[in-house]
Amino acid sequence: MPYFDAASTAPLHPVARQALLAALDEGWADPARLYREGRRARLLLDAAREAAAEAVGCRPDELVFTPSGTRAVHAGVSGALAGRRRVGDRLVVSAVEHSSVLHAGEAHTAAGGTVAEVPVDRSGAVDPERFAAALDARTALACLQSANHEVGTEQPVAEVADACRAAGVPLLVDAAQSLGWGPVPEGWSLLAASAHKWGGPSGVGLLAVRKGVRFAPQGPGDERESGRAPGFENLPAIVAAAASLRAVRAEAAEEAARLRALVDRIRARVPELVPDVEVVGDPVRRLPHLVTFSCLYVDGETLLHELDREGFSVSSGSSCTSSTLTPSHVLRAMGVLSEGNVRVSLPAGTAEEDVDRFLGVLPGVVAAVRERLGAPRPSAVAGAAPDTLLVDALGKRCPIPVIELARVIGDVPVGGTVTVLSDDEAARLDIPAWCEMRGQEYVGGEPSPKGGTAYVVRRVA
Amino acid sequence: MPYFDAASTAPLHPVARQALLAALDEGWADPARLYREGRRARLLLDAAREAAAEAVGCRPDELVFTPSGTRAVHAGVSGALAGRRRVGDRLVVSAVEHSSVLHAGEAHTAAGGTVAEVPVDRSGAVDPERFAAALDARTALACLQSANHEVGTEQPVAEVADACRAAGVPLLVDAAQSLGWGPVPEGWSLLAASAHKWGGPSGVGLLAVRKGVRFAPQGPGDERESGRAPGFENLPAIVAAAASLRAVRAEAAEEAARLRALVDRIRARVPELVPDVEVVGDPVRRLPHLVTFSCLYVDGETLLHELDREGFSVSSGSSCTSSTLTPSHVLRAMGVLSEGNVRVSLPAGTAEEDVDRFLGVLPGVVAAVRERLGAPRPSAVAGAAPDTLLVDALGKRCPIPVIELARVIGDVPVGGTVTVLSDDEAARLDIPAWCEMRGQEYVGGEPSPKGGTAYVVRRVA
Repeated sequence: MPYFDAASTAPLHPVARQALLAALDEGWADPARLYREGRRARLLLDAAREAAAEAVGCRPDELVFTPSGTRAVHAGVSGALAGRRRVGDRLVVSAVEHSSVLHAGEAHTAAGGTVAEVPVDRSGAVDPERFAAALDARTALACLQSANHEVGTEQPVAEVADACRAAGVPLLVDAAQSLGWGPVPEGWSLLAASAHKWGGPSGVGLLAVRKGVRFAPQGPGDERESGRAPGFENLPAIVAAAASLRAVRAEAAEEAARLRALVDRIRARVPELVPDVEVVGDPVRRLPHLVTFSCLYVDGETLLHELDREGFSVSSGSSCTSSTLTPSHVLRAMGVLSEGNVRVSLPAGTAEEDVDRFLGVLPGVVAAVRERLGAPRPSAVAGAAPDTLLVDALGKRCPIPVIELARVIGDVPVGGTVTVLSDDEAARLDIPAWCEMRGQEYVGGEPSPKGGTAYVVRRVA
Repeated sequence: MPYFDAASTAPLHPVARQALLAALDEGWADPARLYREGRRARLLLDAAREAAAEAVGCRPDELVFTPSGTRAVHAGVSGALAGRRRVGDRLVVSAVEHSSVLHAGEAHTAAGGTVAEVPVDRSGAVDPERFAAALDARTALACLQSANHEVGTEQPVAEVADACRAAGVPLLVDAAQSLGWGPVPEGWSLLAASAHKWGGPSGVGLLAVRKGVRFAPQGPGDERESGRAPGFENLPAIVAAAASLRAVRAEAAEEAARLRALVDRIRARVPELVPDVEVVGDPVRRLPHLVTFSCLYVDGETLLHELDREGFSVSSGSSCTSSTLTPSHVLRAMGVLSEGNVRVSLPAGTAEEDVDRFLGVLPGVVAAVRERLGAPRPSAVAGAAPDTLLVDALGKRCPIPVIELARVIGDVPVGGTVTVLSDDEAARLDIPAWCEMRGQEYVGGEPSPKGGTAYVVRRVA
């Protein structure tokens, strides 16, 4: 069963499994103890720290192990903000950071701090100049991911790091998606990562804090992990994390090239095979294994279920697949279509045949979902009638509002308008995105007296 | 090599190992995902939660998994305090709680809250009436361990829970040391525990919060574990934790009886075999597998090293074995001797012969350490001379100040005094404790003009 959701969690690398088993025997004791089992555990912990630090590109005493990547981000953000409290309380982040960064920002806001979000372009990348412009004299910390977890776009980390250095602001890089593929470019002050993203076990994150960075760990601490990650060390998992990072790195160049070619094939073939699709994210400056596309007139949850029935495990940033019924904040920030969204992230070792089989089943699956939802036939544009039409889609969820818009746009003459009433959060993103894809004019949206928003679209084509 | 430090961490139970291996194959995916690997992970997570909840004695939706017992305590204390912020900011804890509770209290104090410590008697137990008296109208939370981790004394949890209920104060029970042996008595509001203490894997703690308890999780959160434990679930370890808790419980009654008899043997034999020893903790209301004793005129670190050379892994609450060079806060709160302290905690399956071999080597090891330190011969009391003597032990570490006191006490006549100058933190505890053991009168201590403290002891016997 092809599992194409490595960006959520990668299957355990064989080296991780071997190391975990060995460390269950050798590394179960408390590394803080003086007796032989404790000393053996300490040696394993020290060796794991050295190996991880080498892969990260830092000194071992700059790196601690945390219980997850999320905890590494939370501890890194709160510690760096507190360490520079005297400078100011402003946190600058990109708009497409992982939710762990955004949650840390929300906690900062709740405590009275301020958070500034740097927007991204349609590819999902920040502009280093705009990022630099957001850094002011009261900025305590900036956060930028190495690469985006939903669309794969690599961020200009080196350029942003230069800007941060010039502004005297420490930069925390969330390297969760990229660390297995290679080190982060120089210039970061703090770095966070997560072992289960590179094929290590769950239960291990990394937090590296460069010497000289002001850092004040928040919350209750203890004497473990330099006071930065309290609680008994999860040593077998730490050993497995470090061993697998080394193993994954040894295979990274070759595997990246192979997966990059497979992803290029998906990027090229999907728009040929499936009508009304938008492939998003930077086509070149991107993670090797990840591609995201959105299909008009499809709801993401049904699409996921149907692909699952065909044996493919993928994820989606569509609103219907989130507990809050809002589209992924990443797709929103990029301004791209969110309906019928699919993220394919290939684990190491993915077979070419599985990718081809995916490309084989996708068109039929999308067509069937569209058929069931009554989506307009591709490019079917009918004759004209009244100058303006009203579509009441209140109470209907993505992708229905866009489907109803597409069904009637051909019923107004060129220059005429369709007004769509919708109270679905996804419409805010998807109606303008549909206009962009279809070459129609998105006039705007305003609160409707009947509830929800009235989105006005002018027929151009 | 007999490992007698189960209270630090227990060796992995075979069931934990089997379950961990199985769950590495079946439970590696993200339980929040909709595809088959995710659904399978979700089923495993739900089943683990049900099994753990049954063992704890709560509803599954009251229990979340955390990355460690320490994190469970930290999250439990901060969430309960925040949930009752309007009531007040007072936290009541016993003086002998695990450091994770005390660290949570320190963080609370740093944030402007108040912490009241309820003292314990010489056995290490709180008095329920004194605990009740500490609960006032501004008390947001009370914490009491189920049993002490250093001396094994069981706390009167049921009585304290009654007092808390009467006062309308939620009670958090740290059940880390006892949960493998059986459920905590009814009446708790929050409960924390740690899997590696019962033979489960490291990387898993439990936090149960009863329905109806006001609880506001602190710090950044996410949608996992009811918003109480952010970060990707460590599912293989969670599965192993739940499976091993069930397995350990099934064996608990029989194993507890067996280990209780072995600990009784240690409690009885050590004072017969080794002169000048104090066995501490409640002899009856105690954990089945744990005993602690302190040896006069011995330094704990050397004793640990020598026992390690003989193949025995034990721990110590002596000052010389802590990074802060202060004796264990538990021994201090009990007012018992801390020098030459040894904690023996037998893992399940400990062989009787290993205990007997320990009892065989201990007297020789203690005698050798005493010999090397120049300790007075047991009960050797010499003739009299001047009325008062001064011992300058400034700069000397435990157990030297007590050894020097013991060497000269016989040199003053009955009624005469010895003044010991010491700047070692352990002396504050160990000189009075020595007086109590030896039937001498501890007059008091006051700052010395030469630095440190001048401790005055009157010869009575």
